[in-house]
Amino acid sequence: MQPSSLDELIEALRCLPGVGPKSAQRMAYHLLQRDQRGAARLAGALGHALDVLQHCERCNTFSETEVCQRCANPRRDPALLCIVEMPADLAMIEQTQSYNGLYYVLMGRLSPLDGIGPRELKLDKLIARAADGVVQEVILATNFTNEGEATAHTVASLLAPRGLRISRLSRGVPVGGELEHTDTGTIAQALVERRTV
Amino acid sequence: MQPSSLDELIEALRCLPGVGPKSAQRMAYHLLQRDQRGAARLAGALGHALDVLQHCERCNTFSETEVCQRCANPRRDPALLCIVEMPADLAMIEQTQSYNGLYYVLMGRLSPLDGIGPRELKLDKLIARAADGVVQEVILATNFTNEGEATAHTVASLLAPRGLRISRLSRGVPVGGELEHTDTGTIAQALVERRTV
Repeated sequence: MQPSSLDELIEALRCLPGVGPKSAQRMAYHLLQRDQRGAARLAGALGHALDVLQHCERCNTFSETEVCQRCANPRRDPALLCIVEMPADLAMIEQTQSYNGLYYVLMGRLSPLDGIGPRELKLDKLIARAADGVVQEVILATNFTNEGEATAHTVASLLAPRGLRISRLSRGVPVGGELEHTDTGTIAQALVERRTV
Repeated sequence: MQPSSLDELIEALRCLPGVGPKSAQRMAYHLLQRDQRGAARLAGALGHALDVLQHCERCNTFSETEVCQRCANPRRDPALLCIVEMPADLAMIEQTQSYNGLYYVLMGRLSPLDGIGPRELKLDKLIARAADGVVQEVILATNFTNEGEATAHTVASLLAPRGLRISRLSRGVPVGGELEHTDTGTIAQALVERRTV
């Protein structure tokens, strides 16, 4: 007995990650009852983003132009290519202000359980990008989770035959970290990867 | 350095209840990267719902027509008016198949901390509805939370001078409930409201 347009809105909201039937219902009521302006804005923003956003030809991140601003910036070092999982990871590295090379954004990670393999991640696009003859070093900056490590390993094995230098972010005790409060896995890794000073 | 259409989408997603900056970002990436069809569907459903949904003139719930199907149903008893907070509460009562009267949906509850007082809840619309001369009993079925109880109390005090019978859902031990596993407040209430058998 509920209007079909309301049912359809509740069903459509379930495409959002982590939103089940109860949250979708709560969201629909909230939007219609308390925030119609927000709802109209969201509808417009979705439509506009779908219209104008594409993937940068070079780094694969979301961009409104064929090549994104960062890839088009001549002040960036084109010999360095840093591979990250998501744009949020790229943003974190940019915030460190300690990297001036270019990026490649995988837009995901290998995750066989979710059906995301090398083909879904379009690793061939990454290989073509890394083998442009200008890139000399590829820095693997995927997460240090199981899936991120597996992704880094796969990418490394695909790029190894191309004669590129391949590196990975170092693991170890966080800056400012106290050994007493660091997990043993991290300390063990920091021992294995200890540096001569 | 992020495209403005992506920033705008992330910002617009924050109008959803319980969605902060991190979830909004995750939702935006998911929609754009993994579920563009879902995103287009959501944009369409939002626009359509905003276009066609209004509040039923009689019961105040969402409806695509001036008077909703339920209020227009001549087999319903117009002498009974059950007052609930949200359409989800109405749906629960309908599922019991034990009520054949009409409803009034407040679309919220009194909540001074959120700035929702009698005016925001449009209680004058409820009073006009209940005082139509046909309604004889008003059943208060707001939640048994603090806010729901306060709402029921306020509605009762507003309707009392109209000569209507006013009732409230009973409180007590849930059907199938074991005393050992029932909270003491509920047991105390069940004692106070004990029934002669």
